[in-house]
Amino acid sequence: MKAVMKKKPAKGFELGDVEVPEVKDGELLVKVKATSVCGTDVHIWKWDEWAQKRIKTPRIIGHEFAGEVVELGKGVEGFKKGDMVSGETHINCEHCFQCRTGNGHICENVKLRGIDVDGCFAEYLTMPAGTAWKNDPKIPLEVMSAQEPFGNAVHTVYSGKVAGQTIVVMGCGPIGMCAAALCNATGAEKIFVVDINDYRLGLAQKLAGNSSSITLVNAAKEDPVKAVLAATGGRGADVVLEMSGIGECLRQSFKMVRAGGRVSILGVYSGEVPLDVTDGIVFKGAIVNGVNGRLMFDTWFRSAALLRSGKVDLSRIITHKFNGLDKMDEAIEVMASGKSGKVVVFP
Amino acid sequence: MKAVMKKKPAKGFELGDVEVPEVKDGELLVKVKATSVCGTDVHIWKWDEWAQKRIKTPRIIGHEFAGEVVELGKGVEGFKKGDMVSGETHINCEHCFQCRTGNGHICENVKLRGIDVDGCFAEYLTMPAGTAWKNDPKIPLEVMSAQEPFGNAVHTVYSGKVAGQTIVVMGCGPIGMCAAALCNATGAEKIFVVDINDYRLGLAQKLAGNSSSITLVNAAKEDPVKAVLAATGGRGADVVLEMSGIGECLRQSFKMVRAGGRVSILGVYSGEVPLDVTDGIVFKGAIVNGVNGRLMFDTWFRSAALLRSGKVDLSRIITHKFNGLDKMDEAIEVMASGKSGKVVVFP
Amino acid sequence: MKAVMKKKPAKGFELGDVEVPEVKDGELLVKVKATSVCGTDVHIWKWDEWAQKRIKTPRIIGHEFAGEVVELGKGVEGFKKGDMVSGETHINCEHCFQCRTGNGHICENVKLRGIDVDGCFAEYLTMPAGTAWKNDPKIPLEVMSAQEPFGNAVHTVYSGKVAGQTIVVMGCGPIGMCAAALCNATGAEKIFVVDINDYRLGLAQKLAGNSSSITLVNAAKEDPVKAVLAATGGRGADVVLEMSGIGECLRQSFKMVRAGGRVSILGVYSGEVPLDVTDGIVFKGAIVNGVNGRLMFDTWFRSAALLRSGKVDLSRIITHKFNGLDKMDEAIEVMASGKSGKVVVFP
Amino acid sequence: MKAVMKKKPAKGFELGDVEVPEVKDGELLVKVKATSVCGTDVHIWKWDEWAQKRIKTPRIIGHEFAGEVVELGKGVEGFKKGDMVSGETHINCEHCFQCRTGNGHICENVKLRGIDVDGCFAEYLTMPAGTAWKNDPKIPLEVMSAQEPFGNAVHTVYSGKVAGQTIVVMGCGPIGMCAAALCNATGAEKIFVVDINDYRLGLAQKLAGNSSSITLVNAAKEDPVKAVLAATGGRGADVVLEMSGIGECLRQSFKMVRAGGRVSILGVYSGEVPLDVTDGIVFKGAIVNGVNGRLMFDTWFRSAALLRSGKVDLSRIITHKFNGLDKMDEAIEVMASGKSGKVVVFP
Repeated sequence: MKAVMKKKPAKGFELGDVEVPEVKDGELLVKVKATSVCGTDVHIWKWDEWAQKRIKTPRIIGHEFAGEVVELGKGVEGFKKGDMVSGETHINCEHCFQCRTGNGHICENVKLRGIDVDGCFAEYLTMPAGTAWKNDPKIPLEVMSAQEPFGNAVHTVYSGKVAGQTIVVMGCGPIGMCAAALCNATGAEKIFVVDINDYRLGLAQKLAGNSSSITLVNAAKEDPVKAVLAATGGRGADVVLEMSGIGECLRQSFKMVRAGGRVSILGVYSGEVPLDVTDGIVFKGAIVNGVNGRLMFDTWFRSAALLRSGKVDLSRIITHKFNGLDKMDEAIEVMASGKSGKVVVFP
Repeated sequence: MKAVMKKKPAKGFELGDVEVPEVKDGELLVKVKATSVCGTDVHIWKWDEWAQKRIKTPRIIGHEFAGEVVELGKGVEGFKKGDMVSGETHINCEHCFQCRTGNGHICENVKLRGIDVDGCFAEYLTMPAGTAWKNDPKIPLEVMSAQEPFGNAVHTVYSGKVAGQTIVVMGCGPIGMCAAALCNATGAEKIFVVDINDYRLGLAQKLAGNSSSITLVNAAKEDPVKAVLAATGGRGADVVLEMSGIGECLRQSFKMVRAGGRVSILGVYSGEVPLDVTDGIVFKGAIVNGVNGRLMFDTWFRSAALLRSGKVDLSRIITHKFNGLDKMDEAIEVMASGKSGKVVVFP
Repeated sequence: MKAVMKKKPAKGFELGDVEVPEVKDGELLVKVKATSVCGTDVHIWKWDEWAQKRIKTPRIIGHEFAGEVVELGKGVEGFKKGDMVSGETHINCEHCFQCRTGNGHICENVKLRGIDVDGCFAEYLTMPAGTAWKNDPKIPLEVMSAQEPFGNAVHTVYSGKVAGQTIVVMGCGPIGMCAAALCNATGAEKIFVVDINDYRLGLAQKLAGNSSSITLVNAAKEDPVKAVLAATGGRGADVVLEMSGIGECLRQSFKMVRAGGRVSILGVYSGEVPLDVTDGIVFKGAIVNGVNGRLMFDTWFRSAALLRSGKVDLSRIITHKFNGLDKMDEAIEVMASGKSGKVVVFP
Repeated sequence: MKAVMKKKPAKGFELGDVEVPEVKDGELLVKVKATSVCGTDVHIWKWDEWAQKRIKTPRIIGHEFAGEVVELGKGVEGFKKGDMVSGETHINCEHCFQCRTGNGHICENVKLRGIDVDGCFAEYLTMPAGTAWKNDPKIPLEVMSAQEPFGNAVHTVYSGKVAGQTIVVMGCGPIGMCAAALCNATGAEKIFVVDINDYRLGLAQKLAGNSSSITLVNAAKEDPVKAVLAATGGRGADVVLEMSGIGECLRQSFKMVRAGGRVSILGVYSGEVPLDVTDGIVFKGAIVNGVNGRLMFDTWFRSAALLRSGKVDLSRIITHKFNGLDKMDEAIEVMASGKSGKVVVFP
């Protein structure tokens, strides 16, 4: 089968021709129908410092997908041939402390698809049935594939209260866009979306159906801390969702959150971040939570419900579609350009 | 001043002419601009068994209102003349265990406006500043007045998760209508609204903007338990909000809630209700919570945010408006007819 | 192997001689070292109405045990031969909605050990590795076996706050005794233990180390509602744990809980229970939760920690030990007499 | 009356002779019977950078006390002459957003006793009745006074789960000692107490009744991160309570907390603290909360219950008692020496 791979430790991907993987006990063999590109894939493509440390070659890349079950390993229950599935990226062990207490997303032995094990930029992949999600066939293929990053947004947004709250989304990549739309669709009073990329800010607004609850803040043009404090009479936002991965934005988050408020952090930072813990967390009595992956599978049930009901229409931010795995380089370049929402490739 | 009163222990109200109440330390004197009718007022008007036990005459009736601050007692902070306020019905003591632990709504010494102390079906009323809520002047007067029952719905709905959930609202009076609209505006996937009054079911749908997430169930025509189980593949609803006050509806609530689900009860029942606690609560591992009043003032902040943002437009269910306190009998009759949403009287 | 069985639909048990069960993929074969008797086993022995409806013969009985892993099925991870394990009674499917959202204890396809599948009153049993719990070898065998009902108490007690609370335990069987001791060991200010059996009340006090926080209430001699209200200045208890399974005790629970308090129900009632929902739940703004089984495996981790640390010493209520499965009738009779704590049989 | 004051902006305190303050509406006049010294008082005495910025002279110092109500202002309810009271240090406005949502401890207009308004190192003080706490007369005077810092510990410890958890207390001042004892008395399995002061570590152990659950770690002699990881099989602690106010200890907290664990921060840091947010919070999916003051008055109710029940005996760490306000310099010096627990002065 064809597969987009990192064959050797160097920049770029190669289109390989490899054996269809063999399905083991408890696994599904899935024919990939759609796959989408994550910022992580761009890091691996670029072969940056993080990727060099983390990825062992050869490796098939990719973790966002939708596909059809074509074969079932021994002992699989709850799935059948023909089911259209997506998959958790966090392949958990099911027997560690975290897995046994409902926290498989932070499994002590977790392996990440497309990083630690072979991924979905391929014609087929195998996966433990315990990491598979059965889709409602009415949802479009590309939306099924984009559910994984959508789930990151769902996990972050619903770490606390939303309805009636004033919420800031720092960083407007696809997950930030989803977060803003979720906040709007589920009752936030005001949502500030902060980025320096007007194209992406525009997509957030579009995904949120041009709701008047959304305020776009281009941080290159105005100070987001001042904007939020001014709009809240100096009190600050109830909730800040830090999705930029930029240290300065995290520092700003603690300046713009109100006393007793919440800062949920999905961003990943290069190096340590100096924080004013005293004024930003302690005196404010603030709540901070780190967000990793998606609750398995609470987040998926909730995500699917929100998509099925039409409360969020993810197809609005699927800006690019490519046919054929040989177009993956183009897909990566579009994603890296900053002029895209979600980029989908149909193998 | 004119005031709608229960002067003696008998059916009906009388329009009295009484002194404007004197403002005491810590109180506000408020000129009533709009007042609305609650089912409780109808009970008092009818002078039913509950009312006969509870109300001591003479008493000015009414607890939903909006009015202008015209005088401030000594020591009041946070309000000024000209503020447009509404008020908590629960007049709490501020020094009991409940009040000192953030639960003033279940104050051990609570007095209810329009029941234990004089109410707002009058030209003026006094109130402790600690029970007043300052309105955003952009909100229409009649909506300000209807915030109090809206707050009951807010308190009930947000006792637990809403976004992505399947929710049943049992009983479609004005509070049930508000609950359905809130669930829809804040991300519930499916909302079943159950009543036997098609007029009121229609109002719920209207308040929810005719959302396709709403399913109306006329319990006179179909079994709501069967309807909910069928729509959820036999699993049951994630959440049931019991707002009918009918014992049989409460019994049905425990049949239609899923294992691990939530039943929030705002209804008030005449007599004991026989419940299948074993199958309905214990084996299901269900959560049940009783709802009384509104969180002071967490609910009011959230309610105001939802109204300001336009996520719920309460004016859609304000079906009747009357000018003059002398129209109160008409207002009560409309309310008792079942052919109304919220009924507002401008004194 | 020898096994205590219900061979035919009639009162009593028989000691059978059956094949050692074959271990399947994902299962453990366990040599039973200790097993303990639950009230449920007594119901099955007596062959009461519930048992007649629920049990299909032939069936090996029993669900509380500790044993040694002697063989591992294919694909098992996290266990090895020689491990001393106990087991969850709730054998969950791992693929339903409940299992996939961390609520395996209320699995939609749950099978109960010793009821729906063969149990542990035998020399050997097989079990899915996913339902096994690896014990710290320092814990005595009989305590390992009693962890299962101890877990019921842990699940119930920690459904909400404990430290500094006034708590009532209604019903003083072994689980009630455990609950009282847990409340005492984890900071409750006052614990009222209610039963009509002085022997068992005495065991509760012993298990709680004769703590002065414990007050025993013999409901045959004094009204527990009056006792609790008197001791709390009329306010009521913060928490009531209903573990008696008697309708009248449940009714009393709602009379003795304070406004804003919690009633956690583990009891199983024959038939419906008429409840004053209005005064007992709604006006009080009370929280009620049903308790089924143990959180898998959050409860087990917590239980083991409490046992390891010596905060609760379960051996204090293990009143009877028998050697040999042929003594099971004696064990059942002791358990049925009401003059026992936990009764353990070493096969 | 006599009062220990900062009369002018310089090091040290002076014993002044001032008028007994006049009781205003809603206030209590209290005759101070016992007062205790906090680390903050030492900072003010030393006149360090923080104190120079914050304190305006003249000011009576002190915020921990117990005293007798000798006069009541107009409108006070819930107190009477002769009541023995202690007081919240956070004097809240009662009308801001925080106060109206049950978060008076982070009031937007808060004034701190002994810092922003006159304190209790005096023969008398006045206080709003809303900030007073009525003591059980059975509790010793010096313990009543020490309830305020004890409440800081209660607020921090019960920000999350305790029973069955492995908990690290970083920093062993009086609040750290209380935290360790609370964890022990309310069911933590293992408690690591970290400091470099063996005298204070010893006091923590004493306060916790020499429980075997306590492990003392002198950070000058061993690496607390290594110690905690080793004792937890590499997993890390369930909970870390950062009470040292030292940046490096906060950094260590995020290294020793397990995935999904909690870090509660009461410490106050000079300057920003560089944190590994990515590994320490985000990937771990950790929960962090800042702790300021005490929940008003939820924390006080819980604290009093724990003291009344004898679960924690604060008198064990009251190491020094002085008679007379003229001994305040001695008291401060003892406190600054590091060779003390709680230091109490009887005016």
